[in-house]
Amino acid sequence: MPLDPARTVADLEELRDLTGDGNGAQRVAWTETWEQARRWLREKVAPTGAREEIDEAGNQWFTLGRGRPSLLIGGHIDSVPNGGWLDGCLNVLAGVEVLRRIASEGTPPVAVRLVNWADEEGARFGRSLFGSSAAAGSMRDQAELRERRDADGTRLEDAVREHGVDLDRALDAHAQLDGAGAYLELHIEQGPVLESLDLPLGVVLGTFGVERHRVTFRGQAAHAGSTPMDKRRDALAGAAKLELEIREIAKRVGGGAVCTMGSVVTKPGIVTSVVETAECLLDQRHLDATQLAEMLSNAEAASRRFAGEEELDVEWERIWQIEPILFDESLIELADESVREVTGTSQRLPSGPLHDAAEISRAGVPTVMLFVQSLRGLSHTNLEDTKREHLELSVQALDRLATKTLQRLAGS
Amino acid sequence: MPLDPARTVADLEELRDLTGDGNGAQRVAWTETWEQARRWLREKVAPTGAREEIDEAGNQWFTLGRGRPSLLIGGHIDSVPNGGWLDGCLNVLAGVEVLRRIASEGTPPVAVRLVNWADEEGARFGRSLFGSSAAAGSMRDQAELRERRDADGTRLEDAVREHGVDLDRALDAHAQLDGAGAYLELHIEQGPVLESLDLPLGVVLGTFGVERHRVTFRGQAAHAGSTPMDKRRDALAGAAKLELEIREIAKRVGGGAVCTMGSVVTKPGIVTSVVETAECLLDQRHLDATQLAEMLSNAEAASRRFAGEEELDVEWERIWQIEPILFDESLIELADESVREVTGTSQRLPSGPLHDAAEISRAGVPTVMLFVQSLRGLSHTNLEDTKREHLELSVQALDRLATKTLQRLAGS
Repeated sequence: MPLDPARTVADLEELRDLTGDGNGAQRVAWTETWEQARRWLREKVAPTGAREEIDEAGNQWFTLGRGRPSLLIGGHIDSVPNGGWLDGCLNVLAGVEVLRRIASEGTPPVAVRLVNWADEEGARFGRSLFGSSAAAGSMRDQAELRERRDADGTRLEDAVREHGVDLDRALDAHAQLDGAGAYLELHIEQGPVLESLDLPLGVVLGTFGVERHRVTFRGQAAHAGSTPMDKRRDALAGAAKLELEIREIAKRVGGGAVCTMGSVVTKPGIVTSVVETAECLLDQRHLDATQLAEMLSNAEAASRRFAGEEELDVEWERIWQIEPILFDESLIELADESVREVTGTSQRLPSGPLHDAAEISRAGVPTVMLFVQSLRGLSHTNLEDTKREHLELSVQALDRLATKTLQRLAGS
Repeated sequence: MPLDPARTVADLEELRDLTGDGNGAQRVAWTETWEQARRWLREKVAPTGAREEIDEAGNQWFTLGRGRPSLLIGGHIDSVPNGGWLDGCLNVLAGVEVLRRIASEGTPPVAVRLVNWADEEGARFGRSLFGSSAAAGSMRDQAELRERRDADGTRLEDAVREHGVDLDRALDAHAQLDGAGAYLELHIEQGPVLESLDLPLGVVLGTFGVERHRVTFRGQAAHAGSTPMDKRRDALAGAAKLELEIREIAKRVGGGAVCTMGSVVTKPGIVTSVVETAECLLDQRHLDATQLAEMLSNAEAASRRFAGEEELDVEWERIWQIEPILFDESLIELADESVREVTGTSQRLPSGPLHDAAEISRAGVPTVMLFVQSLRGLSHTNLEDTKREHLELSVQALDRLATKTLQRLAGS
């Protein structure tokens, strides 16, 4: 049975009709709709003869053949509420098509395993990458997870137990990575880069490191009518200078650096008063840890310079941080070859969002991702879309990458 | 009986103890505490022999002598809730001391009238300058006033009726200005200028014209991780550039220009998204109408230039506007002389806040104000304060100004 990328598109449509509604995909993890999607996936894979196993973290594995080092292909069938028809499940269903093609050719030389990670989105409990972080061994927050509750007050621990997961044993899923030789994942880009370059496919270099801070400038409230300009300590001026400077810093550091001031809150925030306090949320990302650290220290230094110029106080508070995760260089090269063979041109790019692949890479399994173009860069919405021909090209590229990787693993 | 400025300070303290509490002054207009303050004022003025009259807008007048053109001295005994001990009542009680001094010297050559304007603050119904705008004839919003309600749902019309005011007849108070030759008002500065110059007293040139707008920049929300810097349409960048540019515009226009961005609201306002909409509140003030118009048109042009640079849309919506009101040049000169005689140095400055004096000036009565230093520029709070010696100097300066103005009016 040769590879049939059109069948993947048909599978995606079938899943959409089964588990979505007028508002979009509703496959939120740890719900009945998600279980329905997992049952549906089981039936889809069954004809390949792959053995199914659900691990201690709720991840759903399908294995063809035996022998190490094994080839892993992954994705997640869960979605956000009112989600798109591609995010996560394209990865899984393209993997199903690759399994079908491999199975039709007999038993592979080493084990080929498709994994449907549990709760990548974290939509119900606010904790993303549940299953992959358990398998990777990086789930260090079980005590905190135990206390998490959804909007209805249901505890995460109780919700996962209903789906066969004992939180205390979730990290035992780590055994699934024993002998893994490579991890491949296809995903929609969720950004505008490939569309702007008019390219269907790209190869992902890794996921950005992130530095996220609350930066608070404090000046002095003063009457907008009676306070001369040279007697003001306007906190908004500090925030404005920093907003403009972070763009210069990103440009100077380069290498795909991005920096965003996503929110400013002004207090007292009335038209008749100079701003006393401006609270800014700052998000800086880079693929290179050293350059990310440089961006952060440049922004801190700039904020202190601006505070000096404007006679303000400035305070930085870290909200969140994650190191950059770089994918495997030799797999990046195989991915480049695969994309070029399918489309003629490859493009390397970083991933802004995190993915299950980042967890698996952190665990030491050589990893790479393919991106397929997202129309208007939209995801996590019913408007998420990718051209049919691009979806089919992405299945072809994943299949070629799987073949090349399998050859390498079998020869090692 | 010679002028006794210390008595004015004692009167202020007596009023504070009678009508304030631990949180500050509580003389909100159209309340029992305000009536109590008016009764107390009546008793204070009675020994001078001045005739009392309450006009159709609730303004309380005390008149010594007869003959035109008359000299008016004004202030307001009402306060905001939890207000300071000086704002408005210093003006009235300094005027009482001037009346005492004039009465002790016999009958003045023309009528000398002290007015306690009703509801300058607008604290209960959100409509300031009630009594003075009625007298000035500029109260054009009676239909709208009729529908105003306080926080408890009481209608303004009903509340003022309880204090003897028929809203339909309030404009009849205009007759009180017949034959008025000059209007004088002393007020705390409510700003930092005199304190920063280390001067007790200043002469007010007029009240600022104000242009108040909501300026909305609109770009495109986009993922903070997956959207390269050169693909962004960041509404906050437009707001930041405008915040910094309005200061340059104020500097360039000069003449005491002030400009304030008192609030920015960012939407969606989350750390993971580029800002789609930035709503700014902009307040521009100048004493010169032409220069105010220039500031506004410069800011509008700058905002459109920034919108172009950042690929944003920008929209301006006027919230409020008032023309500058310039005080009388010859009275400004007399005020300068008076202040110089009392303190050695005079300083001319504009008023950012509006005052009853602005309404009377608009009505065509030659008007001037004196400012006395405010500590830390604070008002509308229990922390409002002015040094005792400065209060006493201000009473002396008002008295000298009254004498000089009276001489001029009597000779005209």
